[in-house]
Amino acid sequence: MKTARELAQIAGGETESTVGIARVSHPAAAGADALVFAQDAASLEAALASAAGLIFAAEALAATGQRPADPRLVWLHDAKYGFALAGRELRGPGEGSALHPSAVVDDSATLGQGTRVGAGAVIEAGAVLGLECRIGPRVVVHAGVVLGDRCVVQAGAVLGATGFGYVRQRETGEYLLFPQQGTLVLEDDVEIGANTTIDRGALGETRIGRGTKVDNLVHIGHNCRIGRNVVIAAQVGLSGSCVVEDGVVIAGQVGLGDHCHIGPGVVLGGQSGVYSGKTVRGPGELFAGTPAEPAREHMKSLARLRRLK
Amino acid sequence: MKTARELAQIAGGETESTVGIARVSHPAAAGADALVFAQDAASLEAALASAAGLIFAAEALAATGQRPADPRLVWLHDAKYGFALAGRELRGPGEGSALHPSAVVDDSATLGQGTRVGAGAVIEAGAVLGLECRIGPRVVVHAGVVLGDRCVVQAGAVLGATGFGYVRQRETGEYLLFPQQGTLVLEDDVEIGANTTIDRGALGETRIGRGTKVDNLVHIGHNCRIGRNVVIAAQVGLSGSCVVEDGVVIAGQVGLGDHCHIGPGVVLGGQSGVYSGKTVRGPGELFAGTPAEPAREHMKSLARLRRLK
Amino acid sequence: MKTARELAQIAGGETESTVGIARVSHPAAAGADALVFAQDAASLEAALASAAGLIFAAEALAATGQRPADPRLVWLHDAKYGFALAGRELRGPGEGSALHPSAVVDDSATLGQGTRVGAGAVIEAGAVLGLECRIGPRVVVHAGVVLGDRCVVQAGAVLGATGFGYVRQRETGEYLLFPQQGTLVLEDDVEIGANTTIDRGALGETRIGRGTKVDNLVHIGHNCRIGRNVVIAAQVGLSGSCVVEDGVVIAGQVGLGDHCHIGPGVVLGGQSGVYSGKTVRGPGELFAGTPAEPAREHMKSLARLRRLK
Repeated sequence: MKTARELAQIAGGETESTVGIARVSHPAAAGADALVFAQDAASLEAALASAAGLIFAAEALAATGQRPADPRLVWLHDAKYGFALAGRELRGPGEGSALHPSAVVDDSATLGQGTRVGAGAVIEAGAVLGLECRIGPRVVVHAGVVLGDRCVVQAGAVLGATGFGYVRQRETGEYLLFPQQGTLVLEDDVEIGANTTIDRGALGETRIGRGTKVDNLVHIGHNCRIGRNVVIAAQVGLSGSCVVEDGVVIAGQVGLGDHCHIGPGVVLGGQSGVYSGKTVRGPGELFAGTPAEPAREHMKSLARLRRLK
Repeated sequence: MKTARELAQIAGGETESTVGIARVSHPAAAGADALVFAQDAASLEAALASAAGLIFAAEALAATGQRPADPRLVWLHDAKYGFALAGRELRGPGEGSALHPSAVVDDSATLGQGTRVGAGAVIEAGAVLGLECRIGPRVVVHAGVVLGDRCVVQAGAVLGATGFGYVRQRETGEYLLFPQQGTLVLEDDVEIGANTTIDRGALGETRIGRGTKVDNLVHIGHNCRIGRNVVIAAQVGLSGSCVVEDGVVIAGQVGLGDHCHIGPGVVLGGQSGVYSGKTVRGPGELFAGTPAEPAREHMKSLARLRRLK
Repeated sequence: MKTARELAQIAGGETESTVGIARVSHPAAAGADALVFAQDAASLEAALASAAGLIFAAEALAATGQRPADPRLVWLHDAKYGFALAGRELRGPGEGSALHPSAVVDDSATLGQGTRVGAGAVIEAGAVLGLECRIGPRVVVHAGVVLGDRCVVQAGAVLGATGFGYVRQRETGEYLLFPQQGTLVLEDDVEIGANTTIDRGALGETRIGRGTKVDNLVHIGHNCRIGRNVVIAAQVGLSGSCVVEDGVVIAGQVGLGDHCHIGPGVVLGGQSGVYSGKTVRGPGELFAGTPAEPAREHMKSLARLRRLK
């Protein structure tokens, strides 16, 4: 429970109200102890009609002349971001045991202060977890994997699996595992979705940069190097040794061949694919199709195809 | 063990035979205690030549004049469906402990009568499971998730994970989690495949309608609303806030952007994709490609492309 | 720890050196106890400049005149394969407990000598595991599944899940599970990636041939029959009853409809798709696109499309 004034301050706004706020909410489910937010005229109307005790609203709405005098209103440059900040504050340090009794943590693993490990999780020898990480139920952190501070790993994820690198015996066609003895490093504030798998490096390391967020059922192969503040949506697959630079956004089900290079700020549209060894560049530009091309070109090609007789 | 007569009745057919039937089988592996089924001339021949004690055969075969006098035969409108009904009957209420000692079930979770929970499963606080559910090994049911009656959840599935919703801080490019505090509801008779992940709603709920079947490694994002008797094959990915209406069939590896709307009875072909915010309509119609278009149009486009010089 | 001479012999080469080698390494991280390998001029230079105690180098390099007299060098026909052989030797029989105390192994399951089972793994009734298998943490081996010798199953994989086969009730549109009571057989030397799911047969069996390697997050449906020495990369999905013959290579995110037949030695490129019931043939030939066609044809089609005005 925080006062309206405390939450407004956290979000960079102001109010004199000292009403107690316990939770964030949809307008429809809001009571006097709830914070809601409004980014457009319709959601502002819903917020004002609700029982919410506090409303974060976008300044842009005020600028259009819609500036009601409701004392619950706090005007913010980015109301949604402020709402997320307040939501984090209200969640508090998180409930649950620091280390669930059913978790299996090797004696040689190191867990930073405030780090919590869920039921059935397995932390192997030599793994190092930073401060205030949250490791979900049934997560596996393999031997020697390193996590920075405030990392979140959801249920069932596997960190530091053996990479998929084989050498083919020419005469027999049999495959022999290439050594997969490298490591995996997650920098600070990395968040990993449920049942996602990230392989350790073969001889070197796999690395996920600070602040990068990875959704459910994603596969990241050995020796990949992912930059900072990258977003990787569900079911994306990165083959080995890909480099993804800072600020890239990868939509769902995208596939990258091995040794791809995705330049800073690129946006790869859903289901697009990049062939092995290729480079994609263009900050803020959206790519689509397989092999990925600028989305405008891709759309023109599809339109041309439909015009053919 | 049931008599042939009992099983025939369950399937909507008749026989005077009281031979004991213990299992369903392939003709090749059938003994006198086995039921087999036949839907075409070839499988009828195999069934008659087998040692099976009971044969469910499609009435359409009898109509074509092939109506042998074998006393093991029971004629049914839908022999395969009858076979599946008999198979369910013969499986019985299911073996295994009601609650495996290695499962971790929170004291505040509620389990309906006849519900069984497998080894290493984790049921968190406030979760509610209906009657006669089967929760496989290592399943995670997160806090507050609600399952109806007779739901089946296979090994490793994660129900109620934190959704992938972030707000970007404009100046720094950093991402902050948007509150993901909603819930997930599975209605009666929903079945979920191995290692599938379904996220809880952000502020509202994610809902899977009655009788819907979901295969392995599927991802369903926060706030999706799936109708009744929907089929979702392996590795399909649904981004947040999609609406999928009753009777839809989604083939393997299909991807939906956020806020898609799939009308009742639509069939999305394998690997097809629907862009964010788009609607697909047409009961019983097959769609293909990305962006998804009627399959006939898609095939014509591909054919035109190959004719080009 | 092995001597240089022992490791050279294992790889099919020769040296008089008896220096002790404890590990394989990158040149950059190599010390006197490390083996490195060189396949081209650049990596040979790096190897020679490193502190490595032993260097496996490709004979082809010697043939080009680059045959330095460094006593650490061992010339091999396939230096990378030799390096992998040495790496396997140096890993030894593997650390860790034979059977982790947190694993749940049914009394009726059979584990061959030298087989190790990781933390939280679940081995159900009647499962049979051969000699020297390595079962990772939280793996599920369902009832009756059979593994040959030296199989490796990584964390979170689910072997023998219930297949996704339903019969639709015509009047109500409801789906009823078709019996899924068959089994799953992994032959010798099969390796399975993290969080991969493989379904048991419906009435018959699903079978993965000797020496086949499967990456993370792959789905293999019921009744599939996979040949020997097949490679299946991450996130590939095989619908039910597919036949994949010996030596096939399937790149990431490929999707096969049910009842496909992939001929020996075919290479399916990343994200390609094969429609239900189709056959793809051509040893060593690369296929691309959906529906999959020879990659050269596919590239020509894409080029034609871009030339259109």
